[in-house]
Amino acid sequence: MAEQKATNVTWHEHTVTKDERFQLAGHKGVVVWFTGLSACGKSTIANALDNKLHQMGKHSFVLDGDNIRLGLNKNLKFSPEDRTENIRRIGEVAKLFASSGTIAITAFISPYKADRDAVRALFAPGEFIEVLVDASVETCEARDPKGLYKKARAGEIPNFTGISAPYEAPDKAELVLDANTKGIEELTNEVFAYLESKGVLKA
Amino acid sequence: MAEQKATNVTWHEHTVTKDERFQLAGHKGVVVWFTGLSACGKSTIANALDNKLHQMGKHSFVLDGDNIRLGLNKNLKFSPEDRTENIRRIGEVAKLFASSGTIAITAFISPYKADRDAVRALFAPGEFIEVLVDASVETCEARDPKGLYKKARAGEIPNFTGISAPYEAPDKAELVLDANTKGIEELTNEVFAYLESKGVLKA
Repeated sequence: MAEQKATNVTWHEHTVTKDERFQLAGHKGVVVWFTGLSACGKSTIANALDNKLHQMGKHSFVLDGDNIRLGLNKNLKFSPEDRTENIRRIGEVAKLFASSGTIAITAFISPYKADRDAVRALFAPGEFIEVLVDASVETCEARDPKGLYKKARAGEIPNFTGISAPYEAPDKAELVLDANTKGIEELTNEVFAYLESKGVLKA
Repeated sequence: MAEQKATNVTWHEHTVTKDERFQLAGHKGVVVWFTGLSACGKSTIANALDNKLHQMGKHSFVLDGDNIRLGLNKNLKFSPEDRTENIRRIGEVAKLFASSGTIAITAFISPYKADRDAVRALFAPGEFIEVLVDASVETCEARDPKGLYKKARAGEIPNFTGISAPYEAPDKAELVLDANTKGIEELTNEVFAYLESKGVLKA
């Protein structure tokens, strides 16, 4: 038998497990990953979902341009390499949030399939929920709340997704939202119903 | 009066505020930022604190080498520039966690004062709690659980903090833990008592 040298014998180290965090939260930790064109409604639906979950006592959090592009990723621009690194970092942060027992909700164009699939690969099956907010360029351009499409058409914004840069739609999204014809509340409820049906909202 | 054009008049957008998240969590969101030499006990105390908070139903989460260096920051090495970017990213992620109503606990050497102060500047007063885990090089080298000091002395690890790279101790840490003479449980309780005394553990 090895000699007992520790003087602090009452101390037992324990690392809190992911499942214990889910039990405390009362639900599972996942990421709901919205993808789609600029002005398709991603961020609005993400915040509506966050609000609905919060009202029900669920722990959710939105990662979007407002809190990522001005913070963690402020040293990245819009080249293909920087877009890839942007999505990689967001995926890693979403994974940390999900591990902590939070329903992480991300709202980024995330135009490249390979980038989204690389994020998916970080997660166990069922923990990465890809949601395509499906709206045509025409629909988004007609909304254009920030005037970005107008600037892109005028050549003032280079590499603008849907105009001068590609958008690669997912072919295996967990959910496709028809944002051409349906409103925010209906689409939010569709995502909520999906989470409920998959058992995400209970530990 | 402006003409009412919206067809979706029952929808009211609401973004969940930080205070509402604190109310749901039952406590405030902050970061407890441990700093100190390799093998000083940072990670062990961080996990012990996380465990204690979790047992009490508080939402806490540890960011440390295990989940950051292999994930978010796997494209960074140990040059001064990369160490700075490493700490910058961790600070931004800790801020997101704190905003979500989580007690974020970080355990990184974070040897440069300027890097830690840049993180502090991201937070409101009281939300960034810097904790120096104060152990001498001799104490840490005597422990050396991973044999890193031995390798550093042999010149096998360049830029090793405390041996061949500087450690800049904080001069305004919220808390200084005497890890030369006290054990993990006692030091963990000191941090816990600090959080309690500052009202962090209630919303």
